[in-house]
Amino acid sequence: MTSKDPKTPTLCVVGTMAFDDIETPHGAREAILGGSATYFGVASSYFTDVGASSVVGEDFPAGFRAVLETHGIDLAGVEVKEGGRTFHWSGRYEGTMDQAETLVTDLNVLLDFDPVLPAHFRSAPYVFLANTDPAIQLKVIEQLESPELVVMDTMNLWIDVARDNLAKVLERVDGLMINDAEARQLTGESNLIVAGKAILRMGPRFVIVKKGEHGSFLFSADRLFALPSYPLDEVVDPTGAGDSFAGGTMGYLASVQETGIDDICRAMVHGTVVASFTCSDFSLDRLAHIDRPEIDRRVQELQDFVRVP
Amino acid sequence: MTSKDPKTPTLCVVGTMAFDDIETPHGAREAILGGSATYFGVASSYFTDVGASSVVGEDFPAGFRAVLETHGIDLAGVEVKEGGRTFHWSGRYEGTMDQAETLVTDLNVLLDFDPVLPAHFRSAPYVFLANTDPAIQLKVIEQLESPELVVMDTMNLWIDVARDNLAKVLERVDGLMINDAEARQLTGESNLIVAGKAILRMGPRFVIVKKGEHGSFLFSADRLFALPSYPLDEVVDPTGAGDSFAGGTMGYLASVQETGIDDICRAMVHGTVVASFTCSDFSLDRLAHIDRPEIDRRVQELQDFVRVP
Repeated sequence: MTSKDPKTPTLCVVGTMAFDDIETPHGAREAILGGSATYFGVASSYFTDVGASSVVGEDFPAGFRAVLETHGIDLAGVEVKEGGRTFHWSGRYEGTMDQAETLVTDLNVLLDFDPVLPAHFRSAPYVFLANTDPAIQLKVIEQLESPELVVMDTMNLWIDVARDNLAKVLERVDGLMINDAEARQLTGESNLIVAGKAILRMGPRFVIVKKGEHGSFLFSADRLFALPSYPLDEVVDPTGAGDSFAGGTMGYLASVQETGIDDICRAMVHGTVVASFTCSDFSLDRLAHIDRPEIDRRVQELQDFVRVP
Repeated sequence: MTSKDPKTPTLCVVGTMAFDDIETPHGAREAILGGSATYFGVASSYFTDVGASSVVGEDFPAGFRAVLETHGIDLAGVEVKEGGRTFHWSGRYEGTMDQAETLVTDLNVLLDFDPVLPAHFRSAPYVFLANTDPAIQLKVIEQLESPELVVMDTMNLWIDVARDNLAKVLERVDGLMINDAEARQLTGESNLIVAGKAILRMGPRFVIVKKGEHGSFLFSADRLFALPSYPLDEVVDPTGAGDSFAGGTMGYLASVQETGIDDICRAMVHGTVVASFTCSDFSLDRLAHIDRPEIDRRVQELQDFVRVP
């Protein structure tokens, strides 16, 4: 795959592109566009120019690719596996929808995902390593030329089966985004505040713990910061909210070209808002159709929501 | 029971006094001081003068009474039931301690709790109706002479078995404090934002939804407000945190003699902080030994915790 414009993207994401089958109390959808790099890419595209590294099968539709291209995402890093089938995930949410029940995971082309960054991606200053095998995350880090900010995600599976490699990645990144259950699992600490501080000692300068509908915490040596989720009257499908949060957060940081803790707090507000749009419909059906003024209105609302008078 | 000083308390609470048996990952205690009026009373005593209405048995120890009297709480409304035994609750917390498993509930003297407010309590301007049968809450309201602010708590049991009376109380109070599961149960709405707004239509001017370790939400016609819990490194026993939160919130409002929504937001910050002390030890072992400067330091920390820079 080649790019007509080999300009280095300000922000680069390495993650998945997927077919999702989703069931929520609001309905069911099959073979809709999903994946971490997809949600992250579109979410961050409202703030900065983005390059995506991923792998898909020959079955990945032109229409899905168009959603990403419409948002100016550089797909030079998306490998199309000959004869391969795209990663497929199926999940169900019930009740308060605070947790997905995974029904099916067909890794397909992800089984031998071995991302080789296009030459013009390697000097990207802002990099997000979405949830994948820590061995792959390490390989990506090796390909980076002096990034300014590298942030990673991970999941329970890797904490279970790849703890050593995970520890190595944690020593190489600036920040970790992780959900509350995983933060507890990673540290063996049931108290979330203690868990967050314990992760800081594993290497990263900051840790953002995602708590779903309960918002997020930022841990750093300088300060703790708490932020609720944006108050939505209706959550249709929370799939991709975490990756959209990451995309909005990293996209904002890339846009202001700052990486201080105060900037990260402000970035989390933007990430939270972008994630709220994701939850309002299946797939990227809402996320892909917003604009910066709409984001900025919700940013103001979220700031009012948390302001102690 | 008579009071030497029949001065009307600024804040009056009607609730329980109890013997608690508690098990948490940090230890176990038997026959310790508990009850909603107890936690509320001591929590609010750091801000204002408080009168408590409750019922205990002849087995209620002088030492427990002394804890309350030390905090200046007017116990003229505490009936000592001849030959009766004090309400006894036994509960266990595991893991993240987000929910108590009730092991034993011996209502004892609570079975025929029929609070008659002492004459000098009836003109109290600030009143909190802790969780009891809505029929009792109604009777208390009938005894009040032009209160400025009446706030109530309730629980799943009354939503199940006394919904009609509960609806009547909701029409008579200014505010409701309720936990998230109960807010969902009361309204049949799984979305908490929708549930909070639905409760407003049942009568109260404001609703505070308590979310345990995830903090609280305020709903009112004017604004929504979100506040996390104070970030504690160690939660020893969360019993009484909700009533302490209510006590700190109502105590603060009584102290500033204001009932506007902005005041309620600030009051919630104080309530949250007071509740954090409760969680740091069993019973009132920590809560009973704090002072206003210690509270104010944590108020500042909590405000920093949520401040978007």
